[in-house]
Formats: sequence, C-alpha cells, structure tokens
Amino acid sequence: MAPKALDYESMNENVKKVQYAVRGELYLRASELQKEGKKIIFTNVGNPHALGQRPLTFPRQVVALCQAPFLLDDPNVGIVFPADAIARAKHYLSLTSGGLGAYSDSRGIPGVRKEVAEFIERRDGYPSDPELIFLTDGASKGVMQTLNCVIRGEGDGVLVPVPQYPLYSATISLLGGSLVPYYLEETANWGLDIIDLQQSVAQARSKGITVRAMVIINPGNPTGQCLSEANLREILRFCYQENLVLLGDEVYQQNIYQDERPFVSSKKVLMDMGLPFSKEVQLVSFHTVSKGYWGECGQRGGYFEMTNIPPKTVDEIYKIASIALSPNVPAQIFMGLMVNPLKPGDISYEQFVRESKGILESLRRRARMMTDGFNSCRNVVCNFTEGAMYSFPQIRLPPKAIEAAKRAGKVPDVFYCLRLLEATGISTVPGSGFGQKEGVFHLRTTILPAEEDMPAIMESFKKFNDEFMEQYEDYRGYSRM
Amino acid sequence: MAPKALDYESMNENVKKVQYAVRGELYLRASELQKEGKKIIFTNVGNPHALGQRPLTFPRQVVALCQAPFLLDDPNVGIVFPADAIARAKHYLSLTSGGLGAYSDSRGIPGVRKEVAEFIERRDGYPSDPELIFLTDGASKGVMQTLNCVIRGEGDGVLVPVPQYPLYSATISLLGGSLVPYYLEETANWGLDIIDLQQSVAQARSKGITVRAMVIINPGNPTGQCLSEANLREILRFCYQENLVLLGDEVYQQNIYQDERPFVSSKKVLMDMGLPFSKEVQLVSFHTVSKGYWGECGQRGGYFEMTNIPPKTVDEIYKIASIALSPNVPAQIFMGLMVNPLKPGDISYEQFVRESKGILESLRRRARMMTDGFNSCRNVVCNFTEGAMYSFPQIRLPPKAIEAAKRAGKVPDVFYCLRLLEATGISTVPGSGFGQKEGVFHLRTTILPAEEDMPAIMESFKKFNDEFMEQYEDYRGYSRM
Repeated sequence: MAPKALDYESMNENVKKVQYAVRGELYLRASELQKEGKKIIFTNVGNPHALGQRPLTFPRQVVALCQAPFLLDDPNVGIVFPADAIARAKHYLSLTSGGLGAYSDSRGIPGVRKEVAEFIERRDGYPSDPELIFLTDGASKGVMQTLNCVIRGEGDGVLVPVPQYPLYSATISLLGGSLVPYYLEETANWGLDIIDLQQSVAQARSKGITVRAMVIINPGNPTGQCLSEANLREILRFCYQENLVLLGDEVYQQNIYQDERPFVSSKKVLMDMGLPFSKEVQLVSFHTVSKGYWGECGQRGGYFEMTNIPPKTVDEIYKIASIALSPNVPAQIFMGLMVNPLKPGDISYEQFVRESKGILESLRRRARMMTDGFNSCRNVVCNFTEGAMYSFPQIRLPPKAIEAAKRAGKVPDVFYCLRLLEATGISTVPGSGFGQKEGVFHLRTTILPAEEDMPAIMESFKKFNDEFMEQYEDYRGYSRM
Repeated sequence: MAPKALDYESMNENVKKVQYAVRGELYLRASELQKEGKKIIFTNVGNPHALGQRPLTFPRQVVALCQAPFLLDDPNVGIVFPADAIARAKHYLSLTSGGLGAYSDSRGIPGVRKEVAEFIERRDGYPSDPELIFLTDGASKGVMQTLNCVIRGEGDGVLVPVPQYPLYSATISLLGGSLVPYYLEETANWGLDIIDLQQSVAQARSKGITVRAMVIINPGNPTGQCLSEANLREILRFCYQENLVLLGDEVYQQNIYQDERPFVSSKKVLMDMGLPFSKEVQLVSFHTVSKGYWGECGQRGGYFEMTNIPPKTVDEIYKIASIALSPNVPAQIFMGLMVNPLKPGDISYEQFVRESKGILESLRRRARMMTDGFNSCRNVVCNFTEGAMYSFPQIRLPPKAIEAAKRAGKVPDVFYCLRLLEATGISTVPGSGFGQKEGVFHLRTTILPAEEDMPAIMESFKKFNDEFMEQYEDYRGYSRM
C-alpha cells in the first residue's frame, strides 16, 4: 500500500527540515533522566517560574478576579484581595465583551491595545497607534505570522543573526524560505558589523535569493548583548538601503544588567532618524509577558507593533490572525497590567516594586556569578551577560574530545553537553542549536537557577568541565585561541 | 523603489488568497455600526459568553486559585472558595512544574493529558494513550498543525464538506494546498453521501490532485447535523480504501439537541470496525473547551488525539509544537476540569450540574425556537439544529433581489445579510462564506442569543425578511424549490 499522508516518508518536507534544539536531544534526554529519578536543573529554556521564581502578586490577583468575576459581588472579597486589584479587575472586565471566556477581537481587546500604545508612547516619546498593535499568544506567534506574510518560497531570504534563537530558523524552514545568516562577533562582545551584513546579503543574492527581511534580537538571545543606539541606526539605514523589513525581537527589554547602555527600541531610533527613514523602513517589533521580571511564560501573552506597514497589509494580517479566532484573553489582561503598572500611592505599589526589583537585582547578580564562574573554568571563555536571560560561553574543546564525539556519532558540543547532563544534571543547549562559526563550540544556559543554588551549580559545572578537559587534553596542553 | 516585503503587492500570495468570512465584511460592518452606537446582536461567531452565557462557577474557582496560588496558604481562603475547588487547584498545580507562569511541555502538561486519555477511554470504551494526545491553544491550532504536516503543495488535496467551517478553507489556502469539496445534502438533513465523496475524489484526481486527507465536522458546523454510526462507518471505510487521513472535528460533541442520535466519536466507530481498519486508518480527532456547556472560547484550550499515527510522525508534530514553546497553561487546567468533572458527593457537584444542565437545556429550547422561527418566514427553510451551535437556513432569494445585489456589486447572500444587519442589528454570516451549491443561498446564525431575547430577535428577523421578500418578489409570487 502507498504511504499514508501522515507516514513519515510522506509528510511535508518543510516540517521535517525544521530543527529546534531548545527542546531537542538534550531536553529529551534530560526528561528521560528526570523520569528515572535524577535531579535535573533545566537551564535549556528561559522559563523562570519553572526554576522557582515566584509570580508578581498584584497581576495574579487581578487575573484571578477576572477569572472569578462572581467574587466581585461577594461581600467577603476584600478579605483576600486588595482594593486596587478589585478595581483593576473591574476595569479589565469592562474592556472585554463577555469576560475571559469570550473570544476577543482577533487583534486583541481594543482597550488593552490602547494601553500598549500609551506604554510605547511613554517609552519612545513618539505616537503609537493601537490599530497597528496586535496582541498574540506569546511573541513567537507574532513572529510566525509576520514571517508567513514575508516568505513566498525558497527564493525569499531572511537575515538572521548567528548565533540566533531557533524560533527564527525553525519558522523559516517551516515556511519554506531561506535563512541568510549574519555573524555576531564574539570578540567584540557579540557586536554586529554592517560590512559583514552587506557581505551576507551579497552572498545570498549571488545564489539567487531575494533578501526581504532582517531579524535583530535586542537584548540578544543567546548572546546577551545590548545593541547601542549607533549600531541600531546603522542597521535601520542598512534596511532602508536594502529595502528590508526589520523584525525587532525586543522581548528582553526589561532585562538589562549593566547601566552603561540602556535598552533603546528600534522604533525610537527609527523615529529619531527622521525622513526619509522614519516614513519608509517597515518595522515590526515584538514584546511579551514571558520575560522581564514577570516571567509569565505559561500565560502566552505578547504583542507586535507595526510601523510603516500599509493598511491593506494590516488588513491581511488581521485576516490571518482571525483564522484562530483570538489570542487567549487572560494573557491579554497580563499584557495590560505589564504596560500599565501600578503607580506610587496605589495600595499594592510598594509590594509590587519590592517584588519586581528583587527579581531584577537577583538576575543581575546571577548574570555576574555565572559569567565569572564560566571564566574560571579551563578552556571556557564567556562574554558578560549584559541583558536577556542567558550565558553563552565558548567551550574550547580539545582535538581528542572532538575525535571522541565523532566516534560517538555526536556533534562535538552535543557530546559535551550530554556528558555535562549525565554528570551533573545540568540541562543546557549546545551552541550548534543556535549556530556558531565553524570549529567553535558553545553552550547556552539560562541565568535563572535560584540565586542560592548558583554557587553549587557553578562548582559542579567547573568540576565536570575541568575533569573533562583533563581527560581529553594532551599532556602538552592545549592553547587554541 | 521596488515594493517592500510587507507592501500588499509583494506579500505571500497564499496569505492574500485566504478567505475568512466569520470575521469578514459583515463582521467589519457590524463593528462599525456598533462604534456608531447601534445595538448589534453578534451571532456571527459561536461565542456564548459574549452573548451573556455565564461561566460555570467551579472551574473558574479552580483556575482563579491556580492563578493566585498564594491564596492557598491564606487562612481566609475558605471564606470565598469551596473546599473542593481548593483541593482541585492544589491537584492541578501539583501537575505543573512552576504553576501557570511556566511553559509546560510543548504537548501540554503530562498529568492533564493523562486525564484526557481517561476521559476518552470512558467515552469510547477503548484504550487511549496520553503520549498520543497533545494539548493546544484551542482546537483550531491543532487543525492547523495537522494540515501543515499533510499539505506539501498545491498538488495535495483535502476533502472538506460544503458547507464547511472556514477554518478549513482558510488553512488550506494559507498552506498552499487544494480544497476538494464534497457536498452535504440539505434535503437529507445535511447527510453525507459516499457516492458523492467518490465523485469528488475522482474529479480531483482528474485534475492531478492527490487527495490526502478528509475533514468531517460532527456535529456539523454550520449545518448542525449529527452523523449516524452507520454513516461514520462508511466514511472510515472510504478513508481506508482511498488511503486518507481523517480529521475528525468533534468540538461540538456535548452540544446535542435531540435524543434519537447521540454523539458517537470517530475513534469509537473505528475501533468497533476491527481489523484491518482499526490498525490502518490514520485519524486525528479534535476537541475544545470553547463549546459544550463551557463555552470558554477566550481561554483557548483544546486537544487532539492521534490514532494510527507512526511514532516518527508524532515526534515531528512534537517538534513543530515546540516552536511556539507551549500552549497556554490556564486553558490546560480548564481542559483537565472539562474531562475530569466533579462527581456526585463533591461539595460543588449539585451547583455544577444545575448550571451545566441549565445551559444545555436552554440551548436545546433555543435551537427549536430558532428553527421554527426561520421556517415561519417567507421563502426561508431550515433543517432542525440537531447539534452544535448554529442554524443554517436557506434563503430563497427572488430573482429581483439577486439582480439588486449584482447592481450593488455584492454576492446575493452578502447583500441580504448586510440589509438584515442594517435593519435589525443582527450580525450573521452569509452562506457563501461556508460554501453552498450554485444558486442556493443561506446564512449562518448562532443559536446563542439569550433565551429571553430570542422571541424578539426572531420577530425582528421575520419582519425584515418578509418585507424584503415583499419588496423583491414578483406580485405573481415566487416558488422555486
């Protein structure tokens, strides 16, 4: 009998081509080990609550009340919920038509989109139009929708940083497009070089690829760098010259661990540049409730804002969003709460500030502990995590380790990460899942393990690594730069 | 300058080809009128809470507590929440790793998938494997993922009933596949004729299309029929013979308004048929928390169960699901609560039964009121709504009305529905959005307006319709059958 449509041989090839390392071999092996009773430290996904971060109290109170609107009529509600949470729940319910159980408009609740626009205006100092803001089930869904509009076939290319977050490579494969890599420069703290960008585009063109869009991740994932205003300006000028849509993945905009270079949005830089850029460059920027000090990953809330996208295209994106009816409504309320937070004087304000500052300051300390820890290990070098939630150390694998990996049928960094997992329970993602230069190896870990566990984790990492290096190094030593 | 990637001319053509009438011209016009202050009765989407249906208390209590886990340590929690809701919240939180704020496994929380499997086993009397059940953000997302694996290009066809729910036509367009229509027979209460199916396949083949899958919607949307066991058996045998994957959209399985023909799942019928069918036919079945007496559309919770899908394919689907990390977690809890409801003796059991029975019985009365109402109108005939949430009356438009529509540049049923909207505020979806035979016209309305409003709505409809018919009919009368 002929293969059936859902037999592996017969499936859509684009599906099979997709690679998704964040939940790939390492994650699957870690899940197995966990089932067998081994203690696993999951640092493969930026999933703070899974590693013990507690949710912010106030937004959870508001959403709990929105889920249980009958409590708003209960005379005892004030015993367990503060008055400002009750008021906010009433506010958000009044913005819905039918509460959390009704589909919203496919673009999201108009009142919440208005609050997002006000947030962007305050952040950037430029007007923002709620009609050009769509709420989504997490930022990923917005990225996928946007790329779906951009990519028409394998002749269409999208510039993606290497290393990159595999959402981009996976989505481009799934949509049958072509990924055009540009390399971030590790020795320049993962900076972005415009000359390198131009070369990537030229190379893609020589292969017959039309480069149509460019992705930046700022702050960087997995690389942790913050792009400077000057660098963003160069990028936007480049997009203008090359006629590229810019996808600005700005989901880590609240996660900044140094004071020298605050987050600046692509939208603000574009508006600052003035004409012709501010009216010409097509920009789609993404944000989420999953990161920042919220870390509400499981809620799946995000938005994207479109700049210089023509109304007819906005209508098409609206139509596509409508196929799945609406993003989940509870996460839309979280988004409202994120962009329109408590103000000084509100009853819950001090608690909210204490909780959110506590998380951010601890992340900053953890970024430092982790980077320093990696840099104290044999054959490991690591740029400081300026932002986002990850460390991306380079692991200088000795030739004998690379040979051993080959004998085991593994990519060298996968081999290293599997050995690390078996020895210590630390579940990381090999650098090959994000892309890296030929012959150079990394791993990605989140900086999210609980602060009190961090010294023991880094010690356990160092013990494994240094023994691994000892095992595979020539006695003459190994000194590749 | 060349068009930019997100200029309309330059976008992915598959995006532009998508049609999505449920939120199309009628919906947009209704939204405009609402902004202008007109009272609109939105019957375009099966969105019960938007039309005043109140959520079931118990599941909302449980999810509210899961959102506010700190309440579980509050000595006063028992003042506003019953003990069984507290116990259930603890149960579901124990199944997560990190509560509602953490991404779950991309397939959904293992413990909830186990509860779904137990539900299916009780329903069908056959084993169900949690590893073959994936939770999704509403059933739509699961349908889109499945079709994404099936469709490789325009040479791949999917059999879709006409009239159909436009999720299918829209997704097939977006994925660049070919829709192969098969017609449901209105005069046989929207039954499905196997000979017609065979003709559809033969016709598609003659055009060079490989038919790879078939969609059934049972109970039907927009048509409201329930498929008999004998009919399902024929369909499954047909899928076996023609080597087709069956997509069983069973989201309305709790919405049954007659006693003669209970819902039977495709999975049960397939297992009943025994070898070779039960081991050969590839089946994916879909369910949701959006319908039934829950109507929790805004939460976006669903699942799909795979039968006879090889493990390598399941791995591929898992990988694709991983790109967007995880379905939203709160809706996974709703799914657990739906498939594992309260039992006699639980504190909240009686209230739960009272609320859910109240909703279902009212829907049954409304289905009757609506069908009878339509059948009392001039030139309108309507099959009884046996299940689901819709009425799909045929509107026999007089030739002069069809001419008037042409002059206005509108499809005739769109013309009628727009006039209905302007005159009465009732926002329906024209039959052309679902597909219908040439020269035959329908509209779809949900049966969801509040029961107490129903007589006035049907009266207002009748007044509009009968005047419309009066206006456009020859004085000699119009009697097309």
